[in-house]
Amino acid sequence: MVELRILGRVESPLVDLTCAPLQGDEGGLNAVLRFDPALGDALRDLAVGDEVIVLTWLDRARRDVLVVHPRNDPSRRETGVFSTRSSDRPNPIGLHRVRIVAIEATAITVAGLEALDNTPILDVKPVLGPVGDR
Amino acid sequence: MVELRILGRVESPLVDLTCAPLQGDEGGLNAVLRFDPALGDALRDLAVGDEVIVLTWLDRARRDVLVVHPRNDPSRRETGVFSTRSSDRPNPIGLHRVRIVAIEATAITVAGLEALDNTPILDVKPVLGPVGDR
Repeated sequence: MVELRILGRVESPLVDLTCAPLQGDEGGLNAVLRFDPALGDALRDLAVGDEVIVLTWLDRARRDVLVVHPRNDPSRRETGVFSTRSSDRPNPIGLHRVRIVAIEATAITVAGLEALDNTPILDVKPVLGPVGDR
Repeated sequence: MVELRILGRVESPLVDLTCAPLQGDEGGLNAVLRFDPALGDALRDLAVGDEVIVLTWLDRARRDVLVVHPRNDPSRRETGVFSTRSSDRPNPIGLHRVRIVAIEATAITVAGLEALDNTPILDVKPVLGPVGDR
């Protein structure tokens, strides 16, 4: 077993699983990533306009599910979760490519994040450019 | 705190941190993802040729580091870890885009994985195509 540290929480108008978009490009809204203030140094080189990958812990997912109907559509055949982006999976880590639109201390506003309000944040990584870029 | 489940381990010729490539496109070799056999159903729709994103737990990383010299180059100024792909970060989750080259039961061989031998596997996700594709 491995223990993750919760680095902050998503603040989002999305509070209901039934109306959350299934993927970020289907209508994600602006959301605020509110980090533990002790992490300021780790955040200090992020800038407005940056595209980043945010990793979250999808804490309302089921971890005991190995197959799902893709996109919750019962007419589609059951598919192994590792071939889907379902949040139901043994380790429900969310992967979100978003753009930074505002920064205020350790609160970072991003566009296009489909995570529910209060979702724990695990990590932020740059979208990789050419090798050697960072 | 959140507990992750280790789903399997990487088997790789890379055993030494000092000779591991920094990114997958700098000379990653074939590696085998050997999963817990109980996860067969979650894996069953993966196919040779698929591009997938593998999430790993970089168990030899430092978790107490907030700034690093990019690419371990001391001539580059210290940068907040969330603006780098350094494995040293509060939650050292590795993100690897790889291609499946062989499948034998729950052992999946991939090309281009830079993870060290015995690295724990956390998740596998498809590279997203157009919305609605999966």
